[in-house]
Amino acid sequence: MRICCPTRLTTKCFVSFLFAVTTLAGAANVDWILTARIAVTMDARRRVIEDAAVAVRGDRILAVGTRAAIDKEHRAAQRLDAGNALLAPGLVNTHTHAAMSLFRGIADDVRLQEWLEKFIFPAESRNVSPEFVRWGTRLACLEMLLSGTTTFTDMYYFEEVVGEVAREAGMRGVLGQTVIGFPVADAKTPAEGLARAERFLKQFDGDPLVTPAVAPHAIYTNSDATLGAARALANRHRKPLLIHLSETKKENDDVRRARGVSPARALDALGLWNGRAVAAHGVWLDDTDIEILAARGVGVAHCPASNMKLASGIAPVVKLLKAGVAVGLGPDGPAGSNNDFDLWEEMDLAGKLAKVHSGDPAALTSRQIVEMATIGGARALGLDGETGSIEPGKRADILIAALDHPRTTPFYDVYSLMVWAMKGSDVRHVMVNGKLVVRDRKPLTLDSAAILKKALEYRGSVAASLRTGR
Amino acid sequence: MRICCPTRLTTKCFVSFLFAVTTLAGAANVDWILTARIAVTMDARRRVIEDAAVAVRGDRILAVGTRAAIDKEHRAAQRLDAGNALLAPGLVNTHTHAAMSLFRGIADDVRLQEWLEKFIFPAESRNVSPEFVRWGTRLACLEMLLSGTTTFTDMYYFEEVVGEVAREAGMRGVLGQTVIGFPVADAKTPAEGLARAERFLKQFDGDPLVTPAVAPHAIYTNSDATLGAARALANRHRKPLLIHLSETKKENDDVRRARGVSPARALDALGLWNGRAVAAHGVWLDDTDIEILAARGVGVAHCPASNMKLASGIAPVVKLLKAGVAVGLGPDGPAGSNNDFDLWEEMDLAGKLAKVHSGDPAALTSRQIVEMATIGGARALGLDGETGSIEPGKRADILIAALDHPRTTPFYDVYSLMVWAMKGSDVRHVMVNGKLVVRDRKPLTLDSAAILKKALEYRGSVAASLRTGR
Repeated sequence: MRICCPTRLTTKCFVSFLFAVTTLAGAANVDWILTARIAVTMDARRRVIEDAAVAVRGDRILAVGTRAAIDKEHRAAQRLDAGNALLAPGLVNTHTHAAMSLFRGIADDVRLQEWLEKFIFPAESRNVSPEFVRWGTRLACLEMLLSGTTTFTDMYYFEEVVGEVAREAGMRGVLGQTVIGFPVADAKTPAEGLARAERFLKQFDGDPLVTPAVAPHAIYTNSDATLGAARALANRHRKPLLIHLSETKKENDDVRRARGVSPARALDALGLWNGRAVAAHGVWLDDTDIEILAARGVGVAHCPASNMKLASGIAPVVKLLKAGVAVGLGPDGPAGSNNDFDLWEEMDLAGKLAKVHSGDPAALTSRQIVEMATIGGARALGLDGETGSIEPGKRADILIAALDHPRTTPFYDVYSLMVWAMKGSDVRHVMVNGKLVVRDRKPLTLDSAAILKKALEYRGSVAASLRTGR
Repeated sequence: MRICCPTRLTTKCFVSFLFAVTTLAGAANVDWILTARIAVTMDARRRVIEDAAVAVRGDRILAVGTRAAIDKEHRAAQRLDAGNALLAPGLVNTHTHAAMSLFRGIADDVRLQEWLEKFIFPAESRNVSPEFVRWGTRLACLEMLLSGTTTFTDMYYFEEVVGEVAREAGMRGVLGQTVIGFPVADAKTPAEGLARAERFLKQFDGDPLVTPAVAPHAIYTNSDATLGAARALANRHRKPLLIHLSETKKENDDVRRARGVSPARALDALGLWNGRAVAAHGVWLDDTDIEILAARGVGVAHCPASNMKLASGIAPVVKLLKAGVAVGLGPDGPAGSNNDFDLWEEMDLAGKLAKVHSGDPAALTSRQIVEMATIGGARALGLDGETGSIEPGKRADILIAALDHPRTTPFYDVYSLMVWAMKGSDVRHVMVNGKLVVRDRKPLTLDSAAILKKALEYRGSVAASLRTGR
């Protein structure tokens, strides 16, 4: 239990206090007890508990321990005894474009700049509407929840619709309204984008699930004035800023040619790192860039699948971690840069890529990789006080995955199991913010059949727009 | 239909003949009709058929076409109407060590030589017995079948037990009895290994599922005399030879230092390529090596997961394919080099690795990758006349995968779907050699509960042997 400062009584302290009081008075009433063969807590001591249980009250975890201890001290309104299963923090996606699920694989095997300019931007301008974003985000949330992702970080258009879907799905989100220097689906000018972003920040201020954010797309798609205005707006509302950073060599070379410094240093000079920021990709960061990001507390979203598939390059993850930068994982968008939202696959890729790239099979251990997908990702988002681990006081964002597949039998180390042998399809139950959202692989908050039907309708109109160019 | 030469009447010709006769006489009786929303045939024209059906008689495919056409011309004893699903050739695993499933992840994050010498060889000498191989192979076959692999290529000890399990599982196998230059679980000397191999070749000669093979482990673990004897033995029985080749830089450097030439050239000089051969890994092949392998018709098993995880390096797959070498995919063993048998993941990795390595997002298209996992793998094994595609006359080795997951909806290109969005868990039904072996994700030939129980027992004894060193 953490020692609370009486002058700054947080919810976490209050829960700890409650816990202390109720245990004195005998068995405490809780909403849920979840049990499993093994729990990976990702707490500060990285405790792994065999025959484990978690007690949940309201939206928060009240206690974690052995099943015997938790059962002795708590009386639960509802139980979920998962048996031969692994209980772990819900996974944290630190970079994605959810609604692009409806563009899944429309353009494979092309370079990022060409992919963006010839395929994605035109397809978006022809197809993206609030309803497109609504159904695309529903499809994405469905896939993410089914594979155990409980927090997602989004950068897209009509972000207020993404926020509505996150609430509907019961999923945690750090959602960034895009600001970009040319006319897009939801704004004709960057000024319009900024105005939209401000309305969005206000609309979702204080939401228990949604952290609204401002998302200037990148240094190469925005003017310095817009970038500065985006930072100022985020700071005025004490919200994070999300941005793509040093994703391709071309971006790096162009910025260096124009400004004499790297994108990370150019953005530093513009003050973009003065406040919570999450930078996606960071493929071409050099040692000085890494020092700056570490000093400014910028979180980095590592996107191995996207960086490999678009041949963008290999991010210096080992160096970033060594410098103390908070690194999370992101599947990016599914329109050609991935093409799914599976964080188990990102874990596997992050590890294998770091090993083959460095020539060192010990580079990135499986524990470090699980950290990136959970508490590390939460830290990159500034949400490590709320999610990313199974500890008393944290929000109850939890996945439970079956261990009855031949692929998960036997295992000798639980982190090795999670990174190298488990898959998204092993996830069986998911809780977000104390609410069960997936049970026995069935979504409880989203209508799967309706979403898949709508996705096929959108497929028809997207394919037609690609054929006709309209 | 293929034109048959009357002087060389093969089974394939006979089936074609039968087909012609029966269609003249009205609807043909068949054992199975399988239908699905879309079929990827991987035939010479790479036909993709919407609303497709396959007619199976005995162990072979009799006809492939639209559901309407197949239904009109055939009367089936049994039907499997899979609905919103993909029908494709069963996947071909060209390199693995199945029984090592019981060692899943015993040693992660170490270099291949250390991994072999400090962990794997000692663990094997303490644990491997015929019963260990039997249960380990059962566990592996269970996992492989559930994820749609219908042919596997194995190199291990007590290979006759692997053959028995392949028959029991109803799975196709190219199974290599190991020959190695130091005492191992099933042979004290290479001579004993060769004698074992000969008995094994005789025992499984003419088996409809098992192609027995000789598997000298590698150039660095066998004398030249043993390597030559292994080749002579394989040729005497007209069977393939399986070997590890140029897996690590160390292997390449050591051989070059000792012999002045690369492993591929040294083995060529020893005559190892005079006869059907499958070389696993090929990470450090140079251009001359590739020319030699192409000229000698050596098949190559590309193992991206293993090569990345052990930091062995990156195989020149694009060059191999360009040179006309038959390349298949292999998950290698699950004891630390992978740690599963999932060929969908190997497809995904092969593509992403080739793209990021070459800096070219167009390197290896998704169609080329599906080829490696099916007909290309079959060609590498010399089995392309029998399996690897859905065409009349071929053995009925077929997978049917559900397309009702949010991850597989929508899609715009079926090869992109298969490589970048589908997973092993989508596989729902599997047929090998005309026999249904997985139905609705349930194994029909193997006892899943008994296998998982036994695997946990072996986990206990393996863990104890690691602790005590005995």
